[in-house]
Amino acid sequence: MTSTWRTRAECDSPELTDDHLDGIHAWWRAANYLSVGQIYLLRNPLLREPLNRDDVKPRLLGHWGTTPGLNFLYAHLNRVISERHQKALYITGPGHGGPGLVASNYLDGVYTDVYPEITRDEGGLQRLFKQFSFPGGIPSHVAPETPGSIHEGGELGYALSHAYGAAFDNPDLLVFAVVGDGEAETGPLATSWHSNKFLNPVTDGVVLPVLHLNGFKIANPTVLARISEEELVDLMQGYGHTPHIFTAGFDDEEPEGYHRRYAELLDGVMDDVAAIRATAAEQGENDAERPRWPMIVFRTPKGWTGPKEIDGHKTEGSWRSHQVPLANARDTEEHLKNLNDWLMSYRPEELFDDSGALREEIARLAPPVGLRMGERPEANGGVIRKELRLPNFEDFAVDVPHPGAAIAEATRVLGTWLTGVVEENRHNFRIFGPDETASNRLQGVYDETDKQWMADYESPEVDQHLARRGQVMEMLSEHQCQGWLEGYLLTGRHGLMSSYEAFIHIVDSMVNQHAKWLKVSDELEWRRPIASLNYLLSSHVWRQDHNGFSHQDPGFIDLIVNKKADVVRVYLPPDANTLLSTFDHCLRSTQYINVVVAGKQPSPQWLTMDEAVKHCTRGLGVWEWAGTEEPGTSPDVVLGCAGDVPTVEVLAAADLLRRHIPDLKVRVVNVVDLMRLQDEKEHPHGLSNRDFDTIFTPDKPVIFNYHGYPWLIHRLTYRRTGHSNIHVRGYKEEGTTTTPFDMAMLNDIDRYHLVMDVIDRVPGLGTRYAGLRQEMSDARLDARAYARTYGDDIPEVKDWVWPDAGDAATNQQVDETVFTGGDNE
Amino acid sequence: MTSTWRTRAECDSPELTDDHLDGIHAWWRAANYLSVGQIYLLRNPLLREPLNRDDVKPRLLGHWGTTPGLNFLYAHLNRVISERHQKALYITGPGHGGPGLVASNYLDGVYTDVYPEITRDEGGLQRLFKQFSFPGGIPSHVAPETPGSIHEGGELGYALSHAYGAAFDNPDLLVFAVVGDGEAETGPLATSWHSNKFLNPVTDGVVLPVLHLNGFKIANPTVLARISEEELVDLMQGYGHTPHIFTAGFDDEEPEGYHRRYAELLDGVMDDVAAIRATAAEQGENDAERPRWPMIVFRTPKGWTGPKEIDGHKTEGSWRSHQVPLANARDTEEHLKNLNDWLMSYRPEELFDDSGALREEIARLAPPVGLRMGERPEANGGVIRKELRLPNFEDFAVDVPHPGAAIAEATRVLGTWLTGVVEENRHNFRIFGPDETASNRLQGVYDETDKQWMADYESPEVDQHLARRGQVMEMLSEHQCQGWLEGYLLTGRHGLMSSYEAFIHIVDSMVNQHAKWLKVSDELEWRRPIASLNYLLSSHVWRQDHNGFSHQDPGFIDLIVNKKADVVRVYLPPDANTLLSTFDHCLRSTQYINVVVAGKQPSPQWLTMDEAVKHCTRGLGVWEWAGTEEPGTSPDVVLGCAGDVPTVEVLAAADLLRRHIPDLKVRVVNVVDLMRLQDEKEHPHGLSNRDFDTIFTPDKPVIFNYHGYPWLIHRLTYRRTGHSNIHVRGYKEEGTTTTPFDMAMLNDIDRYHLVMDVIDRVPGLGTRYAGLRQEMSDARLDARAYARTYGDDIPEVKDWVWPDAGDAATNQQVDETVFTGGDNE
Repeated sequence: MTSTWRTRAECDSPELTDDHLDGIHAWWRAANYLSVGQIYLLRNPLLREPLNRDDVKPRLLGHWGTTPGLNFLYAHLNRVISERHQKALYITGPGHGGPGLVASNYLDGVYTDVYPEITRDEGGLQRLFKQFSFPGGIPSHVAPETPGSIHEGGELGYALSHAYGAAFDNPDLLVFAVVGDGEAETGPLATSWHSNKFLNPVTDGVVLPVLHLNGFKIANPTVLARISEEELVDLMQGYGHTPHIFTAGFDDEEPEGYHRRYAELLDGVMDDVAAIRATAAEQGENDAERPRWPMIVFRTPKGWTGPKEIDGHKTEGSWRSHQVPLANARDTEEHLKNLNDWLMSYRPEELFDDSGALREEIARLAPPVGLRMGERPEANGGVIRKELRLPNFEDFAVDVPHPGAAIAEATRVLGTWLTGVVEENRHNFRIFGPDETASNRLQGVYDETDKQWMADYESPEVDQHLARRGQVMEMLSEHQCQGWLEGYLLTGRHGLMSSYEAFIHIVDSMVNQHAKWLKVSDELEWRRPIASLNYLLSSHVWRQDHNGFSHQDPGFIDLIVNKKADVVRVYLPPDANTLLSTFDHCLRSTQYINVVVAGKQPSPQWLTMDEAVKHCTRGLGVWEWAGTEEPGTSPDVVLGCAGDVPTVEVLAAADLLRRHIPDLKVRVVNVVDLMRLQDEKEHPHGLSNRDFDTIFTPDKPVIFNYHGYPWLIHRLTYRRTGHSNIHVRGYKEEGTTTTPFDMAMLNDIDRYHLVMDVIDRVPGLGTRYAGLRQEMSDARLDARAYARTYGDDIPEVKDWVWPDAGDAATNQQVDETVFTGGDNE
Repeated sequence: MTSTWRTRAECDSPELTDDHLDGIHAWWRAANYLSVGQIYLLRNPLLREPLNRDDVKPRLLGHWGTTPGLNFLYAHLNRVISERHQKALYITGPGHGGPGLVASNYLDGVYTDVYPEITRDEGGLQRLFKQFSFPGGIPSHVAPETPGSIHEGGELGYALSHAYGAAFDNPDLLVFAVVGDGEAETGPLATSWHSNKFLNPVTDGVVLPVLHLNGFKIANPTVLARISEEELVDLMQGYGHTPHIFTAGFDDEEPEGYHRRYAELLDGVMDDVAAIRATAAEQGENDAERPRWPMIVFRTPKGWTGPKEIDGHKTEGSWRSHQVPLANARDTEEHLKNLNDWLMSYRPEELFDDSGALREEIARLAPPVGLRMGERPEANGGVIRKELRLPNFEDFAVDVPHPGAAIAEATRVLGTWLTGVVEENRHNFRIFGPDETASNRLQGVYDETDKQWMADYESPEVDQHLARRGQVMEMLSEHQCQGWLEGYLLTGRHGLMSSYEAFIHIVDSMVNQHAKWLKVSDELEWRRPIASLNYLLSSHVWRQDHNGFSHQDPGFIDLIVNKKADVVRVYLPPDANTLLSTFDHCLRSTQYINVVVAGKQPSPQWLTMDEAVKHCTRGLGVWEWAGTEEPGTSPDVVLGCAGDVPTVEVLAAADLLRRHIPDLKVRVVNVVDLMRLQDEKEHPHGLSNRDFDTIFTPDKPVIFNYHGYPWLIHRLTYRRTGHSNIHVRGYKEEGTTTTPFDMAMLNDIDRYHLVMDVIDRVPGLGTRYAGLRQEMSDARLDARAYARTYGDDIPEVKDWVWPDAGDAATNQQVDETVFTGGDNE
């Protein structure tokens, strides 16, 4: 792997001239002018007529405070990119600075390339200004609509995680990551500095963090701006960086002065980076030491170059610059004059020619086409995404002679297949997880790869499967893993996140943001599809044997289902073969968030691989071998199930019913793809009403045993004909450290309770089978008493196997014609 | 305020003798013995018979790795507590170490005080061991069941936030906060070190963080154990601490050696704390400088004192000690012998007398009764919670001459009342929020208090409302604010958290944990009720004018509704007076999580204070003045609403219907307490079916305009008679930076669409009012076109007021007899 990292001395024209600095300053003024214009102006974009109140937008929406700093950094980085021919991405942690990024993209021409109606003339400027934060226009933050962005400016805290995710396996890429000092107070950002312990200095790219220390949030100073410089330096050194501190804007220094100081600082930092890369390359990817990467502290006033004072209150250098400093610009003469003076302070007449185009001498300072940051393909990952090479998952099938006759750990089987995925996709596939890859039984992948680890090593005896280069990323922070994975996917690669089901809630809000990103991206023709964000949630609610109540929460599915139907999918494969088929599908898909919940404990297996593929293709289906209905007749009751543990209990209940109520016609329906339950008008995977009624019947009792909170099944099915007959069992927030069967009983999803439900719900059974009902109730008490005495599940339960499956399994004949609605992807 | 902080020299017997150290070592051995016993032994607790496989639990569940370190720290802290008469809480960040905390509580007698059946003899030991991680017993983690705990061992990351929350306004309290080095990798923990910028060294207590650096997680080394000591020291200094590093257990040092070294270190640290407190007291609470607080790095082997090797693999000092090192203790002779040797290595015969009681010479090392950490009232906050003194909220009423005739910002009005709450409760009420107290319009409170801020100051012009002591806590980390508030409530105080609605999802998983804590606490007689956790969610989905799509998410309510009905409440007051009444109720309540969603923008006001109190008491009600039904007849259609913006639109739709379809009988129902919609069997606040049908009718179309995701209303009402007639509008994940009315239109909750819905759903209207329907559709297009052209809502919309309310309002006569179901608290 050759490095493109060059020192300034190796560049074509290494000296830093006054012309350079004048050019940068002009560019910065232009970017600031365009930023202010976007926030305030509805028309008269170059102020060629006297500013009139009707030129000002009636609703002033946006954020000025962080913008001039972002523009400054962008302008200077452009010089470095041009001189060193450096591929670079710009991550805007302070995402409020939307106008700045739009302005910079407009100045170098990218914006017009992407949005041709925003021309490089006065008319284009007018449209550029008007569209900002305007109905039918663009959002105020850095967003999918912003060329060059992979980082939504909304929720704060993920700038560095995204930056590192982008850098992994991109050895020639510089990721310039601006971190706001407000954002720096968030937890996720505070730990994400440690990402440098996971970055290989040969095979990954470089992240250059810049702490944008402008001192204020909405209404407060920031913590990092109000500790001593000594503490701040200690903190950054403690995080493993060499900090370089730049301060400007607080005194009368001329622009040439601070531009020169910053340009020299940045050159020095880039030379340090080049030296680090060179050293690491010599050491080699498997032996490189963790370098002490540089970072920059950029201490400048909030709202730099904006009004010093408004109405007698300090504005530049205070929280008053955070949003729109002149909120009444339209309403008072004085504020209108303030705005006019502010805009004119950038001397627009020197920046734009008569047509309104950026003057040629400024425009040519843009990086060469191809290296402009807004057009880097890494920021539109779909254009460089390569399909994964996937081993044939059917080769990894568990042999299931008949339903229930094999025992396997589903995620461990998945791990054997993922080993092949790892092997076949060395540089664009990684597995992320908070210290749980092995706990979730995916350790098979360590046959082919390691956990990437650039911190210190102790001894091979305790440092198993750690290496300086590997495709598994583990840090005990769901935020960090999620952020890394998002950055990795958004730059065109593939991956999955494995986590305990309960604690994936830690990233709820990050998932919300990613879902929003996908939804908006889908509406932008120029953004190409990226690989789906795949979750493997294991160690789930029913099997938290070691950890108990605090580790039991199946609610992530509910969160996901609130997102736009176009971007979310939820799968609950009941065994190993269905899990393989499901995951193969997920890794091939794009633009989705796929949530797969699967068990890791030894469990009975139900379907052969052929059956599994068919079942997963349909998303749900009748398991005729498990039921007792006769062909051509309608069942008396339907037992539905979704999730591995609920499926075991439903099959056990069906077995009990077969033995004890032989004339009862029972149908068993298993659901893998939860969205099939929904109406086809609500979700692309939804079944038609006709198909739903055919499977679940329009009028018979349905006892549905569900993995998660029961009401979700009601929500998904509330429009169905027979909805009022659907009775759902699921997790009702009862739990502790106990045996698996006790957990089932605590929440009434156990086989005995299901049989009681059937007796209660099927007309006529209540009287005839009062004795059986009592027997089931007693069985629950026995099981509980056994557990409380011996600390274990009763043997019959643990050793249960499907009784008549040997023959029944061969009878499986699902009518495929039933499944006509929805797509099957 | 007098300080109880004394130096060792001021203690009664300041010398540290070998007897002290022997005693501590014996205590530690006993705690370790009891910890191992809990994990492994079903019977034979003192090994007075040879260890037999049937003595071992059949399912070994729990975590050993962190436990011996916790026991060590606890034992040494006991000495300090005894000598200095120090009130102290112990926060167990590595909450997996449940057996350790139970053991320590058993040794000092607290456990038997709380659970008398766990006697201090062999029988009690047997019960102590058996109950651990056993069906019907206690969970494996530190939990509500653990005396002295305010910190569930489940999800990681909140140890320091909880510790600081406990310390605020507890000037005499030492909060000894053990942070696991796994936990230290989480985001929330990484930023929580900065809590020291918010702790007043005079009026708050002391947090002494101990980084429990045992080096390993489940399957990996920890980051902080694998950076250089220089970096670690820099990091802690950067966080504002003076680190004291203690290392033991990696060599052959005798116990006396390391016990003496640690005891001296701890004495030194406590003396430093005393000196800091003395200096700060001299400076005074309003002028005290932020001290550089000490912290301890406690570097010891994971699974210290456990088996060095098992099956030839290094176990002590490796991740192999994380859970249960001898998972097969019951199944192989060799492992059984390993277990026996391990237990015997603690020399139980020297620790317990013939009866199985702890020997007297060891038992007397416990802190005096009252100071034992397990019995501190701060750890069972309900016992010391004082009711808040609340100003009469009715005195803060907005004058509403008739519905819609006043305009107010609801949260700003709430702020005026909260000002009085702050004033009346100086030492047990705080407001927490991530830099959004003023943004959410609660800035009235700054008339009476400030934001507590112990970092540097710049100038009064920019540092408004900052002070070294204040009742508002702001840091840009929802995690931190939530953790602080939880710690504050759990130690017996009161507070609220104000946040943007969308970003409260950041703490989803913390809320889950707190809800679990409350649920379990409710089941423990000895835990007394603590103040409710109150959320004020403003800057909500419909009014994110500046921020757009990324800031729009009303899904927190859905998360909350998944929790146990006993502990969650959701309120959507439609105006200022209802918000006042709601919040007064919330601040008086205990053991709930109350979510209140309210707007901050100028909005029409509907109810006088008398009406508001009645309406809130009922939780929902018919607004007869807004409807057109005639007394004694049934309406043709019901317009339901919940949330301020949806309510405005429903009232506007009712107004349009009154004008355009004068013979249509419309009923308007507003819902404040969302749980009223649910069945009384599902939630204590639920309406009976009879009452629900009386209000919503069993058979008429209901158009329900809801603040959040529409399906929640279906979920809450799916058992209702007329459920299939309920048609819900709400947020359907459409948004951007745009005008408020455009937001309503994007999601079809606007008045025009509601009128169209009525025409579509009421039989017979479709044909008669096709023209009106078209007119409504055109009005939408006009409004959208106006917004896209002028960037503003159409004036008619903005200036809308309720037309006929002047008279109608006086006609309000709600039949109170309708509301008989549910409780009203």
